Amino acid sequence: MDDRRRQAVERGFAKQGFMEMLGATLTAIEDGHCEITLAHDRKLTQQHGLFHGGVVATLADNAAGFAAYSLMEDGRQPLTVEFKINLLAPASGASLIARAEVLRAGRSLTHVRADVFSREEEDEVLTATALVTIKASTAVQER
Amino acid sequence: MDDRRRQAVERGFAKQGFMEMLGATLTAIEDGHCEITLAHDRKLTQQHGLFHGGVVATLADNAAGFAAYSLMEDGRQPLTVEFKINLLAPASGASLIARAEVLRAGRSLTHVRADVFSREEEDEVLTATALVTIKASTAVQER
Amino acid sequence: MDDRRRQAVERGFAKQGFMEMLGATLTAIEDGHCEITLAHDRKLTQQHGLFHGGVVATLADNAAGFAAYSLMEDGRQPLTVEFKINLLAPASGASLIARAEVLRAGRSLTHVRADVFSREEEDEVLTATALVTIKASTAVQER
Amino acid sequence: MDDRRRQAVERGFAKQGFMEMLGATLTAIEDGHCEITLAHDRKLTQQHGLFHGGVVATLADNAAGFAAYSLMEDGRQPLTVEFKINLLAPASGASLIARAEVLRAGRSLTHVRADVFSREEEDEVLTATALVTIKASTAVQER
Repeated sequence: MDDRRRQAVERGFAKQGFMEMLGATLTAIEDGHCEITLAHDRKLTQQHGLFHGGVVATLADNAAGFAAYSLMEDGRQPLTVEFKINLLAPASGASLIARAEVLRAGRSLTHVRADVFSREEEDEVLTATALVTIKASTAVQER
Repeated sequence: MDDRRRQAVERGFAKQGFMEMLGATLTAIEDGHCEITLAHDRKLTQQHGLFHGGVVATLADNAAGFAAYSLMEDGRQPLTVEFKINLLAPASGASLIARAEVLRAGRSLTHVRADVFSREEEDEVLTATALVTIKASTAVQER
Repeated sequence: MDDRRRQAVERGFAKQGFMEMLGATLTAIEDGHCEITLAHDRKLTQQHGLFHGGVVATLADNAAGFAAYSLMEDGRQPLTVEFKINLLAPASGASLIARAEVLRAGRSLTHVRADVFSREEEDEVLTATALVTIKASTAVQER
Repeated sequence: MDDRRRQAVERGFAKQGFMEMLGATLTAIEDGHCEITLAHDRKLTQQHGLFHGGVVATLADNAAGFAAYSLMEDGRQPLTVEFKINLLAPASGASLIARAEVLRAGRSLTHVRADVFSREEEDEVLTATALVTIKASTAVQER
């Protein structure tokens, strides 16, 4: 993977206040692939102490966005158009790992699959799977 | 709406560490309806200072879950089976408001629509819309 | 609605071999809105004599595509990027009616909601609801 | 795979008027897996002569339903709760092949991934991918 592209991804990730708030880490980035990892914390839970579905979805969406971004031309930014996620198993475990893979990258739209695993020691269980549509945007509104 | 049911919803919401972390508030709950509100904060953003898509999705999912829960029998808990969200417009604005409405409540499955609006002073813009499938679960794993 | 645009929609619909095969009719088209109607036939069923879920999905997708097309510039064609459909109730009834409404039309992407009703005499029941992402394409591959 | 279960799947498929109308064939069924194949025909097209998106979605949904059915207890019937499909590439080619794989089978709900390939001679291209939620129903309404 191109160094400049890798740095663009890392800078983009670092600028997301929400990833910092969650405590999520960008643990791998390659052409068309991205992995994000997050340790369990009581602040990330729903009413039963499991990871909140919104946390699981956030990781899936974000891993997909950066997987798509890894293949974009300079000057383009990834915007999520829509995504869908199936929650297959309780998001228990000591950490979550989201792994995204680009299925097809077009000029304007990229289709990405993202799987989220819950890890307890060495065991990983597929807890969710998502399909994400990402747009390569040239005009991004800033707040 | 039945008082006991309302209290069950409020207790469920209060027990979600993640809602507290985000700073989200349960602003309305009626039979088959739920509204959650969240003020903008730099910690909730993606790289352009807008609300992160994961935050938008979390509110939609959660409003849907509690809208479904408002109609469930005692002893049942809402579990999200899957959801899909379309991000229609940039999630700018000073706050987000998620409003969910049950489309059909069956014995085991409830179908819910959730819309998320971004509000700036008096103006509301539809920023996202979601379809959510919720299961009424009797056996919930605790961590 | 502009006459030329209406004719473009009607020509597009008439060219779809699949709509003819199903026996579906374009029953209404306005700016950002489209309605398609289909009478029950044993050939359109699943194993219990109800409309096949694929038929329901086809109507939702197609109504969404033509609702988006009604707002497109000349020379653009609607391509479905993805869609999601929740099947709320058995698709029984003597006919199906799909009604689509554009939620947001951008330059390249249009977000559409499509509801499908099953009708028995005067009664309509919401049998399915879909969210559809449509792309305004300039380069369309022909077979 | 159990013979009786295989026969139940084959009978279920044979009873679907819509599969017969399309000309689709059940080409493989194993525990948790199903393949359906369909040859191109002008009657199955959208306005550019490609397979209609509704045909692609129908195959994905149906392959998913029978993959889930292959694992169900006697007396249960597969009902599609909802599905989502991303259309990655034009559905050209001489035939379509839908392949579904169960990701997780629970007592009441089964999560299935279904990929649809377009085939031209020996080449297969991934044209669509779907996530499907199937319910194991005991009470099925007949028309």
